[in-house]
Amino acid sequence: MSLTPEQRAEIEAQRAGGEQTLRAVSPGMEAHLYRAHEVLDHGFVRVIDYMGDDAAICQAARVSYGKGTKSVQNDEGLIRYLMRHWHSTPFEMCEVKFHVKLPIFVARQWIRHRTANVNEYSARYSILDREFYIPAPEHLAAQSVINNQGRGAVLEGAEAARVLELLKADANRAYDHYEAMISQEGQQGLARELARMNLPANIYTQWYWKIDLHNLFHFLRLRADHHAQYEIRVYAEAICKIVADWVPFAYAAFEDYRMGGATLSARALDCVRRMLAGEEVTEENSGMSKGEWREFLAVIGAKR
Amino acid sequence: MSLTPEQRAEIEAQRAGGEQTLRAVSPGMEAHLYRAHEVLDHGFVRVIDYMGDDAAICQAARVSYGKGTKSVQNDEGLIRYLMRHWHSTPFEMCEVKFHVKLPIFVARQWIRHRTANVNEYSARYSILDREFYIPAPEHLAAQSVINNQGRGAVLEGAEAARVLELLKADANRAYDHYEAMISQEGQQGLARELARMNLPANIYTQWYWKIDLHNLFHFLRLRADHHAQYEIRVYAEAICKIVADWVPFAYAAFEDYRMGGATLSARALDCVRRMLAGEEVTEENSGMSKGEWREFLAVIGAKR
Amino acid sequence: MSLTPEQRAEIEAQRAGGEQTLRAVSPGMEAHLYRAHEVLDHGFVRVIDYMGDDAAICQAARVSYGKGTKSVQNDEGLIRYLMRHWHSTPFEMCEVKFHVKLPIFVARQWIRHRTANVNEYSARYSILDREFYIPAPEHLAAQSVINNQGRGAVLEGAEAARVLELLKADANRAYDHYEAMISQEGQQGLARELARMNLPANIYTQWYWKIDLHNLFHFLRLRADHHAQYEIRVYAEAICKIVADWVPFAYAAFEDYRMGGATLSARALDCVRRMLAGEEVTEENSGMSKGEWREFLAVIGAKR
Amino acid sequence: MSLTPEQRAEIEAQRAGGEQTLRAVSPGMEAHLYRAHEVLDHGFVRVIDYMGDDAAICQAARVSYGKGTKSVQNDEGLIRYLMRHWHSTPFEMCEVKFHVKLPIFVARQWIRHRTANVNEYSARYSILDREFYIPAPEHLAAQSVINNQGRGAVLEGAEAARVLELLKADANRAYDHYEAMISQEGQQGLARELARMNLPANIYTQWYWKIDLHNLFHFLRLRADHHAQYEIRVYAEAICKIVADWVPFAYAAFEDYRMGGATLSARALDCVRRMLAGEEVTEENSGMSKGEWREFLAVIGAKR
Repeated sequence: MSLTPEQRAEIEAQRAGGEQTLRAVSPGMEAHLYRAHEVLDHGFVRVIDYMGDDAAICQAARVSYGKGTKSVQNDEGLIRYLMRHWHSTPFEMCEVKFHVKLPIFVARQWIRHRTANVNEYSARYSILDREFYIPAPEHLAAQSVINNQGRGAVLEGAEAARVLELLKADANRAYDHYEAMISQEGQQGLARELARMNLPANIYTQWYWKIDLHNLFHFLRLRADHHAQYEIRVYAEAICKIVADWVPFAYAAFEDYRMGGATLSARALDCVRRMLAGEEVTEENSGMSKGEWREFLAVIGAKR
Repeated sequence: MSLTPEQRAEIEAQRAGGEQTLRAVSPGMEAHLYRAHEVLDHGFVRVIDYMGDDAAICQAARVSYGKGTKSVQNDEGLIRYLMRHWHSTPFEMCEVKFHVKLPIFVARQWIRHRTANVNEYSARYSILDREFYIPAPEHLAAQSVINNQGRGAVLEGAEAARVLELLKADANRAYDHYEAMISQEGQQGLARELARMNLPANIYTQWYWKIDLHNLFHFLRLRADHHAQYEIRVYAEAICKIVADWVPFAYAAFEDYRMGGATLSARALDCVRRMLAGEEVTEENSGMSKGEWREFLAVIGAKR
Repeated sequence: MSLTPEQRAEIEAQRAGGEQTLRAVSPGMEAHLYRAHEVLDHGFVRVIDYMGDDAAICQAARVSYGKGTKSVQNDEGLIRYLMRHWHSTPFEMCEVKFHVKLPIFVARQWIRHRTANVNEYSARYSILDREFYIPAPEHLAAQSVINNQGRGAVLEGAEAARVLELLKADANRAYDHYEAMISQEGQQGLARELARMNLPANIYTQWYWKIDLHNLFHFLRLRADHHAQYEIRVYAEAICKIVADWVPFAYAAFEDYRMGGATLSARALDCVRRMLAGEEVTEENSGMSKGEWREFLAVIGAKR
Repeated sequence: MSLTPEQRAEIEAQRAGGEQTLRAVSPGMEAHLYRAHEVLDHGFVRVIDYMGDDAAICQAARVSYGKGTKSVQNDEGLIRYLMRHWHSTPFEMCEVKFHVKLPIFVARQWIRHRTANVNEYSARYSILDREFYIPAPEHLAAQSVINNQGRGAVLEGAEAARVLELLKADANRAYDHYEAMISQEGQQGLARELARMNLPANIYTQWYWKIDLHNLFHFLRLRADHHAQYEIRVYAEAICKIVADWVPFAYAAFEDYRMGGATLSARALDCVRRMLAGEEVTEENSGMSKGEWREFLAVIGAKR
């Protein structure tokens, strides 16, 4: 794993403390604080701080909707109501800060989520470590033949071995040359901000990443989805487990309405209604394109 | 003041508790938690939750700049460096959530700051209280005669009395009619979402408002400034005092570099250099417009 | 209607011109430029500028997805694909700027959409006009008895007459007093930034509002929805018609996938699958709450 | 240069057209439309679309400030006033869309500006081209010895040759292996989304980037600054030239108040006042740290 002895000692020290606070405390989240959850071969996710809990979501909603919300019997019911009706602002009232170590090509996807705060380790100032993501053999997938984007079958035998060998050798050679270029022994030493350009996209970087719960759910819906690239999905899945312990009601509602739900178009809803009325609906009389129809059948669980 | 007995009891209950947490704790901020700071005649600001402290700002900066930042001896020096060089992301790593009660015309200015999270009391669902902002006599100012925007001298005598009388009478009459329209006694009762349109802009609303420290500083720079309208400035000033207790180093740097500082244009810097070199610089040879020149003299403390 | 003769003349002058450009031009949108679409009794929406068209959305998508997107035969199919799979960034590549005149209580809802640029008429600097929204009799609705938020039946007879009379009289009296307070004849005159607090929430304001197409669709989905308050919905509907002429393919996809579509939860999808398999699904065995079940039946078009 | 013959032909075709529009047209910007401005060895910046001009900024400001702004005689004066007083919203009313080709390590800095819209070429779907940034000899700088971040003297002789050789050889080898891994001849072929991880950070990517003028100025202030890394600064400088032709008054005001200006702290302003009053101010009696004092002397043009 990727933690240095110094980091382990620091985490132990942080977890040994404990002070009094009047703020909302989530016991499930306190148990995660500072601990590193391992992801990929050298990466991790750990919670550095958080604000709010399930009750804080309800408290904010009750400011907005006043006595109206009191008719909902309990917090769980209110949270499900808010999620179902796309009331996003109460979920924005919770905030979380993570420390994440991740390969640069994963970081490049991740950063596209703009509604977050980021402090990334700077390779202009500092020297990157010799740590590269090398896929485990079972994740060394071929290009999908039916999908421009996805992955197909796992590579096997000589091809798999060749790929792993290339990835390792190139990463190490690139790092050797990075070190050689910035070295100041017997030479001036290339500027770090330039030397980093020689490093491949599977080198690890790290950052502090802070986001509110509404935007985190949006991130998780896209990145914990099975269409997401495996290497970012495992981070999203690790975060899902943490969020489930932090705000159990909100996470359960998210799972039901977002992760496990689906949006049907007007055409698709019309088909469902016709099917429920006993009509035989086919691709031809559905009004959908081939791709839409295939996705629709998958959603309603029909065999093709 | 504006707190109901129920609210006071709730605040007492919240302050009586206290739980263990492993998170960063700001003692100065714990002392503020939940307490209502009175603003205007019925308004208040109170802290509901917070994340981070001065050390959290430095910790985030050190992730970014790595060993480079260790050369700065201490947290105070590092925070001053970050503020001076407009490094905004470490300040974004702190977050705060306020409960604010404020007149609607103040809320309309406030909401223009878009990088915040808001849950406002909804007059579609709930009934607004009969509470209106009526200026204290010393804040009943005339339109400025030298400035399209600002205020001039305080109104006096009969004019002041007339204005106060009109504000009070119109507010109360509007509220009487609001109640009469929504009443369901002996009639259907107008929808709340419609009846609210009869209420004037000095009626009080309330909201939860959550923002990161960087964006809060931006808000404070604009709204605690002496050009800001008095009625929003008093809220900003109340928040300034809270922030000074929460993150003392960051607030001190903010005061020095932002609140007390000034931006000089290229032309203005050129004038300063010429003046320091002994040249007599006048409006005519400054290259500035009349307005710029007047503002420049104020910044460098020169008599006009 | 609300346009002054000066405004009409200005619009005529703007429409009389016409210059050459190399940019993407949407003929449907050129026909709307500057023209005021009347909304409510004194409000309007008019297009001041726009950037992009349906082809610009596809062009941006093709930068992202490269040759992969060429397999989609045409622009319409590609746009439907992007909308179906929540690819938001290509829609962000179109932008539109409106001039809107609207009552303040509508403006307060509208401004909650933070991802837009706004320049609002300032009542600190300038004097507001004597224009108030007074509902037409057929929109004078009672508070809903089944819904904390919505409207019920239309008020009738004496009650309706009384409400209209109160709204008109209070608005005019408030405006008379606003004028009296700021008047500088024989007195100092109250500052405008203070006097405005006497004006009710149905007075009209105006602003320039600029937003990208993705965020505009989000606004329209919420505000053109039948749950939205009537007074903002009519603005959203006016904008829908304009957008349909600006980017016909994107708007048609939006109508099918967003406005006419619905999101089903995991539980709801499970119910659909069971119903299609011939099972009798009831509220009791659905796993849903009373409210969810009622909404579910409405979505699948079942009778209650 | 980096344009393919197909791209050149496409640009020629786009520039040959021209249609009538009623929108605001900036003649200076029309001359730039679609044309590629070369940056670095294979990069470029080109304008794809724009909205607004200097007059549009003033028009938006006049909506906000009403008749108040008419006292400012002309557009140039009004724009200078808005820039001086940090009125950002009128500048947000202009928008521009660029097509940029740039090395990935530059893209990683660039994307940190979150208030923009981006569509980037996807290496999950598509194959990247064999194009790498290799610094010109005069930009092959050593690590600065006085600054953790910056660059020092240019590398010379054998060291420079060695660095260039390493950068070229590693980039080409990495690309050879990228091609070998994704090849489907005689093997399955590694998924593109995985193979890309072998490519170094100096490979070129491209994107569409859309931003409003206010946020663009913020980007340019940071990235056209002499502290910015050379490889992103040249892009910012190319954009500066384009913006100067698009909105000449706004750009001139930006140059005077932002690029050429400086922010002085309360302490620094106090020193200026004391110096102008004839007092001898030194580092010791300035109240500043060593670093602040050095920067202060540079701003006021004093010799050290």
